[in-house]
Amino acid sequence: MLLIMKKHIEEDHIQDLLQTLKTKGLQLHRCRRNGQLAYGLFGDKTKIDVQELQNHSSIEDIISIKEPYKLASRTFHPEDTIISIKNISIGQNQDIVIIAGPCSIENQEQIETIAKGIHHAGAKLLRGGAYKPRTSPYTYQGLGEMGVQFLKKAGDTHAMPIVSELMSEDQLQDFIDHVDIIQVGARNMQNFSLLKALGKIRKPILLKRGFSNTIEEWLMAAEYILAGGNSQVILCERGIRTFETATRNTLDLSVIPIIKEKTHLPIIIDPSHATGDWKRVEAMSLAAIAAGADGLMIEVHHQPSCAWSDGFQCLTIENFEKLMEKGRKVAHAIGRTL
Amino acid sequence: MLLIMKKHIEEDHIQDLLQTLKTKGLQLHRCRRNGQLAYGLFGDKTKIDVQELQNHSSIEDIISIKEPYKLASRTFHPEDTIISIKNISIGQNQDIVIIAGPCSIENQEQIETIAKGIHHAGAKLLRGGAYKPRTSPYTYQGLGEMGVQFLKKAGDTHAMPIVSELMSEDQLQDFIDHVDIIQVGARNMQNFSLLKALGKIRKPILLKRGFSNTIEEWLMAAEYILAGGNSQVILCERGIRTFETATRNTLDLSVIPIIKEKTHLPIIIDPSHATGDWKRVEAMSLAAIAAGADGLMIEVHHQPSCAWSDGFQCLTIENFEKLMEKGRKVAHAIGRTL
Amino acid sequence: MLLIMKKHIEEDHIQDLLQTLKTKGLQLHRCRRNGQLAYGLFGDKTKIDVQELQNHSSIEDIISIKEPYKLASRTFHPEDTIISIKNISIGQNQDIVIIAGPCSIENQEQIETIAKGIHHAGAKLLRGGAYKPRTSPYTYQGLGEMGVQFLKKAGDTHAMPIVSELMSEDQLQDFIDHVDIIQVGARNMQNFSLLKALGKIRKPILLKRGFSNTIEEWLMAAEYILAGGNSQVILCERGIRTFETATRNTLDLSVIPIIKEKTHLPIIIDPSHATGDWKRVEAMSLAAIAAGADGLMIEVHHQPSCAWSDGFQCLTIENFEKLMEKGRKVAHAIGRTL
Amino acid sequence: MLLIMKKHIEEDHIQDLLQTLKTKGLQLHRCRRNGQLAYGLFGDKTKIDVQELQNHSSIEDIISIKEPYKLASRTFHPEDTIISIKNISIGQNQDIVIIAGPCSIENQEQIETIAKGIHHAGAKLLRGGAYKPRTSPYTYQGLGEMGVQFLKKAGDTHAMPIVSELMSEDQLQDFIDHVDIIQVGARNMQNFSLLKALGKIRKPILLKRGFSNTIEEWLMAAEYILAGGNSQVILCERGIRTFETATRNTLDLSVIPIIKEKTHLPIIIDPSHATGDWKRVEAMSLAAIAAGADGLMIEVHHQPSCAWSDGFQCLTIENFEKLMEKGRKVAHAIGRTL
Repeated sequence: MLLIMKKHIEEDHIQDLLQTLKTKGLQLHRCRRNGQLAYGLFGDKTKIDVQELQNHSSIEDIISIKEPYKLASRTFHPEDTIISIKNISIGQNQDIVIIAGPCSIENQEQIETIAKGIHHAGAKLLRGGAYKPRTSPYTYQGLGEMGVQFLKKAGDTHAMPIVSELMSEDQLQDFIDHVDIIQVGARNMQNFSLLKALGKIRKPILLKRGFSNTIEEWLMAAEYILAGGNSQVILCERGIRTFETATRNTLDLSVIPIIKEKTHLPIIIDPSHATGDWKRVEAMSLAAIAAGADGLMIEVHHQPSCAWSDGFQCLTIENFEKLMEKGRKVAHAIGRTL
Repeated sequence: MLLIMKKHIEEDHIQDLLQTLKTKGLQLHRCRRNGQLAYGLFGDKTKIDVQELQNHSSIEDIISIKEPYKLASRTFHPEDTIISIKNISIGQNQDIVIIAGPCSIENQEQIETIAKGIHHAGAKLLRGGAYKPRTSPYTYQGLGEMGVQFLKKAGDTHAMPIVSELMSEDQLQDFIDHVDIIQVGARNMQNFSLLKALGKIRKPILLKRGFSNTIEEWLMAAEYILAGGNSQVILCERGIRTFETATRNTLDLSVIPIIKEKTHLPIIIDPSHATGDWKRVEAMSLAAIAAGADGLMIEVHHQPSCAWSDGFQCLTIENFEKLMEKGRKVAHAIGRTL
Repeated sequence: MLLIMKKHIEEDHIQDLLQTLKTKGLQLHRCRRNGQLAYGLFGDKTKIDVQELQNHSSIEDIISIKEPYKLASRTFHPEDTIISIKNISIGQNQDIVIIAGPCSIENQEQIETIAKGIHHAGAKLLRGGAYKPRTSPYTYQGLGEMGVQFLKKAGDTHAMPIVSELMSEDQLQDFIDHVDIIQVGARNMQNFSLLKALGKIRKPILLKRGFSNTIEEWLMAAEYILAGGNSQVILCERGIRTFETATRNTLDLSVIPIIKEKTHLPIIIDPSHATGDWKRVEAMSLAAIAAGADGLMIEVHHQPSCAWSDGFQCLTIENFEKLMEKGRKVAHAIGRTL
Repeated sequence: MLLIMKKHIEEDHIQDLLQTLKTKGLQLHRCRRNGQLAYGLFGDKTKIDVQELQNHSSIEDIISIKEPYKLASRTFHPEDTIISIKNISIGQNQDIVIIAGPCSIENQEQIETIAKGIHHAGAKLLRGGAYKPRTSPYTYQGLGEMGVQFLKKAGDTHAMPIVSELMSEDQLQDFIDHVDIIQVGARNMQNFSLLKALGKIRKPILLKRGFSNTIEEWLMAAEYILAGGNSQVILCERGIRTFETATRNTLDLSVIPIIKEKTHLPIIIDPSHATGDWKRVEAMSLAAIAAGADGLMIEVHHQPSCAWSDGFQCLTIENFEKLMEKGRKVAHAIGRTL
């Protein structure tokens, strides 16, 4: 339920109302809706008299939010959410933002080489995994804190904000200190303890869709972060699990128009993990741009065959350059830039 | 197994060889590969001595086809298959062909109105259902033969070849006589009796992917038609069944680069059935174009709210015109036309 | 909509009513419900005045059927449907019926050997494939009519009714003449032309669930047969397609209580095709019995390693005997026989 | 790789060998295999000379473990793992262990009433949720620590060990102190940080299968716990996500024979969460027993319609008693007890 406040109303009137609602155990989220002050009201609404509220002197209108997600819903927040990191904006419906980098950070030289290559080609953010969620306990688990340091240094050198995956609350302070966008991986999309912890911080979160989660569950996961007070959530589709075996996962591009309709959050596409095969990445990247994605997250390695993990899905720097060139043309065709 | 014949070899030598192979129960398909005469060899190859064949005076090279589909494989037929219907070509890697029309043919006036509208907007082929595969025996099953007549008349008026779905061998002669491209629906993709019957005719077949079939099974279904001698198969992706409920099916656009790599057959995308919601059709159509599809099949109705079936997924003629305009720009961006 | 007729009502009154309803384009299905005459009314009911019908002199009560399937629904037909073939009854909630035999009929000796073995072990019906739906056009397609003859002879010798899969309407007369239960395979579950043809005959149909069809779609497929006038439909679960790769399909045993609640039709389980591995067949068979299945359909071969198709999922005759012994104990534990 | 040591070999010889292997960065797990001392060897085996190892004076045999999971594999540990908690044993292939209780712990009286009822009916362990993984941040999240206290008190009163779900490492010490079996929920099955933490403790872990994870991924998750040194893992199937909508999830009972073949760990079935409907629980429970499950986990509430969460899937105490009675008969039929 969204309470649209009258203009020119005295602050005292509002505070009285809010106090009354709080004592009934309801949560309130202050926001602006089409330039007007509004309050989202969440929790057990059986205790309030909507009729009485409707007639309250400070309230202009009450809007019901039908979706199970509230703060994530377009009804609650009609304008697009724009995430600003340094001089980059994600979700502003004009420039399509490219995040690129290797699956795993291997050493300072590797990440520096890749950062230089992708920066030159036009990528705006640098990604790299320091903590790796691996199916097997016996495979490479990532460089950890040292990896974050390598990534940060390479990002700083090329003035690129950095994106990396957090796997546990233990690593949170290190990520707050050094990482610009904190990624939640597909396997942790419904790790509600982690989501709650991320709701308390003030950093952008890139929330990957679980590989067998519905769009509604994904938005409910975003709602956990938003409900904690962190409004900076970027959604990232990375393929869903189906019966098909020719691709690692099935990239679900129909999320783009659906997310744009149902929510105000930016949507990014990861064609590398979805397809699991670098030969499919270009076609799926161009498709994502044409469908209206706010950005792409692409795996790039200067020597894919030597990559410590997921080499088969990495583009070379040369192929990434070609993709950027083609991507620019498709972006222009739909009135956007890349 | 593909036998590449030597150039300038005498016909007698070849005939001797073929005769020997046939007596061992093997099937032979004559074709041209990079301009050179070749023979595909199918069946139980345990009865032949490959070494001996390799040394045969008329054979230049033998290429093994690893995929379970043979005639559909790029290894067998490296050049793109181009399907020509009247003055239209599908699969020629330049012009993207748009097939449009209503889900069900309702009457002469309806199909004529839609045909006129889509023709003016730039569609090249007219589609319409005369026989409808319906989940319930109590819902509308289509106009049958009369529907085919209405469709043909509207197609003739606007010089558009027509596409319609065949549901049974009983209807085959009527379709051969009047329909330009015969569609096999998703539910009949593994109706092997029907596929065998279609292998014997000489009309283009538009083979929809079953909503829970793998790409390999789809190509094996195409192989049934090809193995019967009908080389004109167009593949059509229309969404697969997943756990997601926000869309009717999940449109799998990654089939485009995979089909282009593994086979020489044209690939068409149907975003209307996949999403089940006209509001997603534009985004998915532009994505399909950007990803390299050879064509689109789109449901259009002049009054979607009055359509006898699937009205919710139909574009109005006006929205179809807008889509065509945007589609042209994306097509140009990747060096193609629409 | 189900019209329950008053007792002791004169036939003339009823005929008048039926005539009126028919002229409005409605379909009527005569049946008995708890011993009382009733008529199922199907089609476009917007043309009738339910209030008026309610007050009609011959009508005692009107029951609405909410499910999209009508004749298949328990509301329409509260008593279990029992299918009788010779001296065997399927669906009578007491004896669990075992159908066994090879995937493919190979020759007279093979089917005779297997028939003898399974009959001795307690199987009641003999199954065998004469027409095989194969993914590849190049693999063995079955013996055809000769296979049906071999199967029939073996069935006659051991007084076992026979079950075989029909793939096309072309084969229908041969099946009507010789086969006791006609099987519709998973791939043809929504081949509506075939279902309509089977609605017109008077033979029991064993309708396999499509490997990616919902229970509702399955019952709608049954409805096609029932609506044609053939009331003898047996449902058969054979596993559904999921992401799991350790089994060929995922056997969905929860269909048993659901089918028993929603419909009056018998439900049979095929653990051989579902698991694709003979080592899982015993456990899944015992589970199906414990869950309340009306029967099992099991692949048995005297020499599985030499079977022409699907040998890996066949039980030997010896293992089939062991399964029957264990199955009897589980059947007794739930108050049934085997 | 599993090194089977010679009998009567001197400890010094063994220690020399182990030291050498450790210096090469390999991990060693001491175990007994068929009564003989053995060492599992994990990590990068490219650094060792297998031939040389084969000839080492202390080694009798080397067995290769092909599965990606090692410690979880039957090859590594042929005997069944039996988990003993107080006087109860899980996995001993005789008594089938029943875990029952409510979805959420609501208050002391509720859990006491249910505990008394299920204990009387024959349940061996008491379950109840104190921390609830909920899709929405706005729905009831559980009583937390107080819930654990209520559960423990009820368990103590009836001498029943208790099972509860852990959602975060923060709660770990409280669970170690008070809970007998720590449950990892489906959504956390690949929360690798949590799995690593649970590998370091010495309490039995009940690891639920993620609703879209393969059996192999599930065993790899178990491997994370085992590799940490905690050998007490119980696997629990709770249904997988498919296209079917008539059930909440599809219960995959074929895991029972597969788990028994591939691993030595006990397997428990949760029919309540899988079906999401109490009316399907009895049939699926009997099926699980017949298929060879080591136990069941069933939701029971004295007033299901008043339950704070998931009431629709709860059995009443009376229906639970009926299930236990029927379950006993099926257990006896397969030579086991309940």
